Amino acid sequence: MEQTKAQLNAKDKQFVKEIADIEENFAQWYTDVVLKTELVDYGPVKGTMVIRPYGYAIWENIQREMDERFKATGVKNAYFPLLIPMSYFTKEAEHVEGFAPEVAVVTHAGGAKLEEPLAIRPTSETIIGTMYSKWVQSYRDLPVLMNQWCNVMRWEKTTRPFLRTSEFLWQEGHTVHASEEEAMEETMNKLALYKEFAENVLAIPVLCGRKTEKEKFAGAVATFGMEAMMLDGKSLQAGTSHYLGQNFSKAFDIKYLDKDGTLKYGYTTSWGTSTRMIGAVIMAHGDKRGLVLPPRVAPIQAIIIPVAAHKGGVMEKCAEVEDLLKKAGVRAETDIRDMSPGWKFNEWEMKGVPIRIEIGPRDIENGVAVIMRRDTLEKTTVPICGIDNAVAELLKTIQKDMLESSRKRRDAKIVEADSLDGILQGVEGKNFVKAGWCGCRECEDKVKEAGQATARVMCDEEGVPEKCAVCGKPAKHKVIFARAY
Amino acid sequence: MEQTKAQLNAKDKQFVKEIADIEENFAQWYTDVVLKTELVDYGPVKGTMVIRPYGYAIWENIQREMDERFKATGVKNAYFPLLIPMSYFTKEAEHVEGFAPEVAVVTHAGGAKLEEPLAIRPTSETIIGTMYSKWVQSYRDLPVLMNQWCNVMRWEKTTRPFLRTSEFLWQEGHTVHASEEEAMEETMNKLALYKEFAENVLAIPVLCGRKTEKEKFAGAVATFGMEAMMLDGKSLQAGTSHYLGQNFSKAFDIKYLDKDGTLKYGYTTSWGTSTRMIGAVIMAHGDKRGLVLPPRVAPIQAIIIPVAAHKGGVMEKCAEVEDLLKKAGVRAETDIRDMSPGWKFNEWEMKGVPIRIEIGPRDIENGVAVIMRRDTLEKTTVPICGIDNAVAELLKTIQKDMLESSRKRRDAKIVEADSLDGILQGVEGKNFVKAGWCGCRECEDKVKEAGQATARVMCDEEGVPEKCAVCGKPAKHKVIFARAY
Repeated sequence: MEQTKAQLNAKDKQFVKEIADIEENFAQWYTDVVLKTELVDYGPVKGTMVIRPYGYAIWENIQREMDERFKATGVKNAYFPLLIPMSYFTKEAEHVEGFAPEVAVVTHAGGAKLEEPLAIRPTSETIIGTMYSKWVQSYRDLPVLMNQWCNVMRWEKTTRPFLRTSEFLWQEGHTVHASEEEAMEETMNKLALYKEFAENVLAIPVLCGRKTEKEKFAGAVATFGMEAMMLDGKSLQAGTSHYLGQNFSKAFDIKYLDKDGTLKYGYTTSWGTSTRMIGAVIMAHGDKRGLVLPPRVAPIQAIIIPVAAHKGGVMEKCAEVEDLLKKAGVRAETDIRDMSPGWKFNEWEMKGVPIRIEIGPRDIENGVAVIMRRDTLEKTTVPICGIDNAVAELLKTIQKDMLESSRKRRDAKIVEADSLDGILQGVEGKNFVKAGWCGCRECEDKVKEAGQATARVMCDEEGVPEKCAVCGKPAKHKVIFARAY
Repeated sequence: MEQTKAQLNAKDKQFVKEIADIEENFAQWYTDVVLKTELVDYGPVKGTMVIRPYGYAIWENIQREMDERFKATGVKNAYFPLLIPMSYFTKEAEHVEGFAPEVAVVTHAGGAKLEEPLAIRPTSETIIGTMYSKWVQSYRDLPVLMNQWCNVMRWEKTTRPFLRTSEFLWQEGHTVHASEEEAMEETMNKLALYKEFAENVLAIPVLCGRKTEKEKFAGAVATFGMEAMMLDGKSLQAGTSHYLGQNFSKAFDIKYLDKDGTLKYGYTTSWGTSTRMIGAVIMAHGDKRGLVLPPRVAPIQAIIIPVAAHKGGVMEKCAEVEDLLKKAGVRAETDIRDMSPGWKFNEWEMKGVPIRIEIGPRDIENGVAVIMRRDTLEKTTVPICGIDNAVAELLKTIQKDMLESSRKRRDAKIVEADSLDGILQGVEGKNFVKAGWCGCRECEDKVKEAGQATARVMCDEEGVPEKCAVCGKPAKHKVIFARAY
């Protein structure tokens, strides 16, 4: 039952008809895949997207897995208003500079002009800070650990579904602590949670570290990010965790009466991940044939395809297997549409369903089914008796294997450089480039201008090189440079 | 361990200090309760609310229970953009008339004036209709069954947390069908789903029926609503299901190629419920002491209170019981704060936790715990061995009993009338009033002017009276009149 290499190649050519070649035009491949698999569509307003059921189901799986992790750390969900008075943004100087240019503004409502224009939240530090200043009174009220799942809006010039759209869905956590140490611990713990999530749920290995001043969140003392390598060697920032120090507590007057009877400002953090992660999943795992979804976020984990469906017993056996799988906790479905098995194979391969199960009359006679793994395209024959355990186990294997093969692919594309030329060559070769850096904005800008690459995160813990690869002065940090989404 | 009536009364007086008397000032009682139990707070922009963790946890329970019901009917979730071009509203004449005056409008974004002003969605028929016209091509694409959980905005003059706020959270289902019959069936099935949900999850009995022309959704052929009676005899519309006929499919060009080779317009429906339901729960079940939450939506179902917590073994036993309860699927928590048990009793009674468990040294000696039901204030002593089953069973009993006592209270306040005076008297006496109606807007308006009451739903299936109670002409419908939120 093994497909020959020639057969596989012939098939790949067929996909090329429907979606652009992943090697030749990765950007077009991405657009073709997200639209043709019905993950997403363009909204009528420029820069907006509609998340269709197949895409939204991925988001629901992400939400469920992440939400339970948050709650296990004592975080509770809440909901803060969409509209924020424009004046709030000016309270934190860096923050307004970073976000004001991207804001969408409501000027009229209920048939009248508003006294003060209102911003649609681009992020909620300012409105949440305002509420926290009211709620936090005593050291007994600390820590405050809240998160919200919501939509935010940032008016972007160049947009692409999931990666950069004027409106997107996300979660934003906001916490207040009594001490710097505790707030920094929270910042790092949430970064670690994100990393564990990215690796174990999305099957994407990530590099975590502190961002440079240039790349940090507007208003933060320090931003920590996690960066994932896409198939084209570019980096995607998949989540950030910010230590805000007392910047926002001073701007919004978040004070508490401490045990010693004095009023003190709290230390705050914020951390977020968004529907962008769906873009990361697509670009970290896809192939010529389309999506390859990790089992833990796949809306359908196993698709059952009847072969010679009209023959007696085939549909019944498919239903029986679907039922068995569902009872074992597998998200299984049978494709009962009136189309050929070959058409269905293509369709579900493009949609990235981790396991395909084929059941035909001869299989039933032999008490077996044919199983294909989407990630490796390997086919095996398994007994129907016990297929539930076999599929459940295979899903775990696929999940693990996808992380490992992503990790191998990525690690082979991390290089080191000790000169600007070295950085540029590395970046041009679609690599992440590690290099020493003096800490000056000028050197960062040079890399950007010459190579369209940015400092993604610092990884000083690996040991800082002696010299800055750009200017040759003593290095203060080790930085990962890459082109990025 | 029974509390005497005198003790209970003394205690109620104490609550009166903190929250307004429910008999004397129901409106103030509501405001006090929602703020003091930290369900909600006022947002900085007039008419907005912040849903705090204790309130949001109720919404999460509502979402989970409702979402699984939707999915069982084949509905899938999606997400459509927040911003809708203003021109879309004008495509359906009644719809624009109903919603345009309440819309909040974005005129500037990204530092520039927009070419066309954009509305923040007050409801999404127009933008979803636009996408459906693109996605629906063939009879094979039908039915389309989608839902979204999102925020919407309607600029209201008079607002109250949960009941009427400029922004609120809701779900809106939108479907397309090949025939009128199928669309009408969908409309009625979702109404039935809402009723089952209201009764079994919120423990609120509801009256369902068709709305009058005056009260229907702007753009619908027919609106069906469910009405719940609050403790003050007023009605709260807790959910609506709309049969939209071909109004929106013609306005937005939702056409499909039928089997017979001809192009036909689809028939659409929409149905929605919102965070308003939290207001219904508060006002249908509360009492002098504050909230009384039905177990299925209560964030905490059983609160464990250590008595003489400093004595050896008390905290350990509380933790042990909490663990037992959690394993039995009960949302249990121990209040370990450094406050007196009496203070905690008041706090958790106000917060409406269905079951309180007291554990002190003497109880531990006897191997028992004291349990109090919030709904009836009854106390019993139960063995700690087996307390998990006892609590799980009691939660089911409370859920059932709360529905039944709500139903009894409501049914005693439904009266019939055959004259305008009778309607006014009934409404003034805080009842729902059933009466014959000729079908004319004038008679509806008269009841509104004279008694501030509106036609809630029609209940013709009970038998239409001979005469209109207002004008005396032959009646066409039997209507429930009531004052409403």
